[in-house]
Amino acid sequence: MTPSTTTLPTFADVESAARQIAGVAHKTPVVTSRAVNARTGAELFFKCENLQRAGAFKFRGAYNALSRLTPDERRRGVVTFSSGNHAQAIALAGQVLDIPRVIVMPSDAPEVKRIATEGYGGEVILYDREKEDREAIGKRLASERGLTLIPPYDHPHIIAGQGTAVRELIEEVGALDLLFVPCGGGGLLSGSAIAANAMQANCRVIGVEPAAGDDATRSFKTKQRQTVDNPKTVADGARTPSLGSLTFPLVLQYVADMATVDDPALLKTMFYLWERLKMVVEPTGALGAAAALDGTTPVRGQRVGIVLSGGNVDLTQVGNWVQYR
Amino acid sequence: MTPSTTTLPTFADVESAARQIAGVAHKTPVVTSRAVNARTGAELFFKCENLQRAGAFKFRGAYNALSRLTPDERRRGVVTFSSGNHAQAIALAGQVLDIPRVIVMPSDAPEVKRIATEGYGGEVILYDREKEDREAIGKRLASERGLTLIPPYDHPHIIAGQGTAVRELIEEVGALDLLFVPCGGGGLLSGSAIAANAMQANCRVIGVEPAAGDDATRSFKTKQRQTVDNPKTVADGARTPSLGSLTFPLVLQYVADMATVDDPALLKTMFYLWERLKMVVEPTGALGAAAALDGTTPVRGQRVGIVLSGGNVDLTQVGNWVQYR
Repeated sequence: MTPSTTTLPTFADVESAARQIAGVAHKTPVVTSRAVNARTGAELFFKCENLQRAGAFKFRGAYNALSRLTPDERRRGVVTFSSGNHAQAIALAGQVLDIPRVIVMPSDAPEVKRIATEGYGGEVILYDREKEDREAIGKRLASERGLTLIPPYDHPHIIAGQGTAVRELIEEVGALDLLFVPCGGGGLLSGSAIAANAMQANCRVIGVEPAAGDDATRSFKTKQRQTVDNPKTVADGARTPSLGSLTFPLVLQYVADMATVDDPALLKTMFYLWERLKMVVEPTGALGAAAALDGTTPVRGQRVGIVLSGGNVDLTQVGNWVQYR
Repeated sequence: MTPSTTTLPTFADVESAARQIAGVAHKTPVVTSRAVNARTGAELFFKCENLQRAGAFKFRGAYNALSRLTPDERRRGVVTFSSGNHAQAIALAGQVLDIPRVIVMPSDAPEVKRIATEGYGGEVILYDREKEDREAIGKRLASERGLTLIPPYDHPHIIAGQGTAVRELIEEVGALDLLFVPCGGGGLLSGSAIAANAMQANCRVIGVEPAAGDDATRSFKTKQRQTVDNPKTVADGARTPSLGSLTFPLVLQYVADMATVDDPALLKTMFYLWERLKMVVEPTGALGAAAALDGTTPVRGQRVGIVLSGGNVDLTQVGNWVQYR
């Protein structure tokens, strides 16, 4: 039942993850807006993962992965690296399951995410994003302390767990013509694409990245894995250097197209969601909505799913961002 | 079936309003938060009227009132005065019912509320809050143009309509020990108190005002109607000069106590709701939550209802407010 870390996850793994997280993760609501539908001429369905436990979809994969560890692995604990939402998710899932957890976070991660991670009882180790390699730090801690490394996206249980959000969305609202999903390292995107493809093969899945961190878009178009170095973008959850060894082939196989959104357009959409849906969505969480609303992918007349992936926004930045509203 | 404008509304009127608005107003969700419950040691149920149509509870009363006009009254149209949320609600309810509407708004109303009102097709007339009397302007327009005046709170159909939110809340979550309700002119508060009292007589209803505009609190304590003159508070929806001739006796009859919250505490709670519930709530909408969280009314061990009355926040102000987070 447990796939190896080099086997690509399938829809059966997503269904298994859905059973694993049932009653622990929230089945998040789907919201709609007459105003947004009128503006686009489409039917938009927003899957509110900002209302997931710890404020982002990441809890799904984190709980799925941690709850499958052996008793011995649980006792020794886990280590991960993350800019924020996966960090909080591992910290909370470890709290729920009583598993020690060490979390390697960049020193410039939003303070709200670092404080929340510590609040869930995770041991936080900061690193310098410009000079240090978080994967190397994670691997070193794993070997020194006997911890199991749970990476933020390139892991079959993580990918399968993230796929459960779109499984719920399609189960609730029925057939979709299009599905827009934020893309950082591709865990949410590939899990979502596995689910959409299995449940409804003619649904076109569009992955959306910040324009400054367009490595996955370039990888998709060239069919060669491309990287980006510390992109400057407000979408702090999508500053990952590249797709992973599992997420890259899954994106190539199941995703119909990739799109990018620049920061001003992203913030404009984020505030539009705050004002129209009354939902606090973080910049990364608004990527899918921004692409759906910007007109480059025609949506008129279609049934469109959008994953609002998280809501852990740094409110101290709003004064700087509101000029783009 | 139609009460006169000088008869105090009853729970039968609230039930009639619930039938009248069914399928047009949203049955808004009730949300809970483990974090908030853990912090307070209570069970808190937040009624999300920020997710109501036009972003506030006001649509309930506005639609209830407008939909009961005679064909002749509908044809001639309505006039109202409001700092914002009632304005939007009348504009939208008039759009739905195809009734012409003139809305008298203060020139310093939040721009987001004025633009939304115009967006729903209301004719907006601005007045100077310091120098002019909005009621006099409304009455003059009513008589000059043959319009029906629909005041923002002192009207039995408005009060009965606003009471439908708490009716839904108690119907959904069951018995409550305490209920915190924001108070401006007292329409929401008295409607809520009528509903709570009828459905569950031992539920203590607490009305909550901004400290700078504590006219209702003083009126409640002295049993004489007190006024306040243009109070300076971020709770722009609660800057009303006094309770009304209908809402005052209803508050005296059904409300257990009044509380006040100063602006820094109000903004701190508002941002807490944004971060914890991921819900955009406006300052006025956070009044009930602020009182429930500030410790002056003990809530530990109790089942507590809180009306989040609106979400039409002026995002351009967030940079100035975030220091109180």
